Amino acid sequence: MEEPQLAVKKAILRIVDVLSTLPNVVHEQLKAGKRYAFEDYGTSSGVLIIKSGSFSVYRRRSDLFLGTISAPNVTSFSEALYNNSFHYIKADEACEAILVYPDDFIQAAEDFDLWEDICLVLSTNLISIFVEQNLNVADTAYEVVKNYLLELADMDDAERYKYNVANYIVERSALSRSAVMAILSDLRKGEFIKMQRAKLISVGKLPKGY
Amino acid sequence: MEEPQLAVKKAILRIVDVLSTLPNVVHEQLKAGKRYAFEDYGTSSGVLIIKSGSFSVYRRRSDLFLGTISAPNVTSFSEALYNNSFHYIKADEACEAILVYPDDFIQAAEDFDLWEDICLVLSTNLISIFVEQNLNVADTAYEVVKNYLLELADMDDAERYKYNVANYIVERSALSRSAVMAILSDLRKGEFIKMQRAKLISVGKLPKGY
Repeated sequence: MEEPQLAVKKAILRIVDVLSTLPNVVHEQLKAGKRYAFEDYGTSSGVLIIKSGSFSVYRRRSDLFLGTISAPNVTSFSEALYNNSFHYIKADEACEAILVYPDDFIQAAEDFDLWEDICLVLSTNLISIFVEQNLNVADTAYEVVKNYLLELADMDDAERYKYNVANYIVERSALSRSAVMAILSDLRKGEFIKMQRAKLISVGKLPKGY
Repeated sequence: MEEPQLAVKKAILRIVDVLSTLPNVVHEQLKAGKRYAFEDYGTSSGVLIIKSGSFSVYRRRSDLFLGTISAPNVTSFSEALYNNSFHYIKADEACEAILVYPDDFIQAAEDFDLWEDICLVLSTNLISIFVEQNLNVADTAYEVVKNYLLELADMDDAERYKYNVANYIVERSALSRSAVMAILSDLRKGEFIKMQRAKLISVGKLPKGY
């Protein structure tokens, strides 16, 4: 079996290639900060391709930030199949988005034999949710903070320096900003972590309890 | 487009039919209460078919109860594709399970053209998670309880009478039993809901706030 991470990248590229060139799609240039609304295009869902730039995904019901998606990518398969929408996106920077209507998407998946590729993307979505749920399973606020610090520590420096540590944790967890700030401050004082201008520089061996 | 709920039932039946008859699968009779461990079969994941009976799914990391699956059904596609396991199952009653090893599953999906059906099942899993997440998005404990009461009220009587209302909510939410019991008790006193022997009989117009 090919490594799933690599296989899913290839799958996404194939899907983007096919869907981008369908006749009935709607190309749209989004300005930074612009929220995308399916309703503006007379549909309640659809597959969304991002050709350039990046956008953030939020839960419609609670405005919870869920993650960032960079081009080239494709999203909302499950919602297109169910013709329902649980999320919305907002452009982080200028980006080009392409809307594929649900019925056109299903027809194209059939015609161009995309179902296996779509399975891989859907599985990746599910696995990401499972991982995220695990990060949020903890008995104490400290353990939640610790899980996210370890996730940040795993990133390349360039990737990690993009994030304000406190924001990163507050946006992804159910913790209050004050709780997160207090824990980070104690960890810095104890020299368990090193931060500079709100970025995480390094993580040492974190205490088990707090 | 066919109704997704109906389409997914048909998809599951087709998948179960094909996978059950593969040569390398492992049939197992599970006694009530028995936990299924992939490790016992020399694999860390796999697709699991349930041919008869029913089992409950739990999050491996926290033992959180996630739901019940009744035969005929099939589970763990995403985990099989990633060869990783985030959940475990426990038989609710005697049941017959069939394990399909990840590589055999992928080969069969290819050979028997199952990817579209699998997409539909994966999408259904994602949509269920989105719905569940929405139910748990609420500012107050009362709103969480209200969401679950409305979910129960939507069920057929026979389905609903299977559940102890308090257990149903405690198992699915992050609320404590005492918080749930207090709210249910107040709602009964106010005659907003009718319960009998821990089952929900009917739900009237629930108060907006609490």
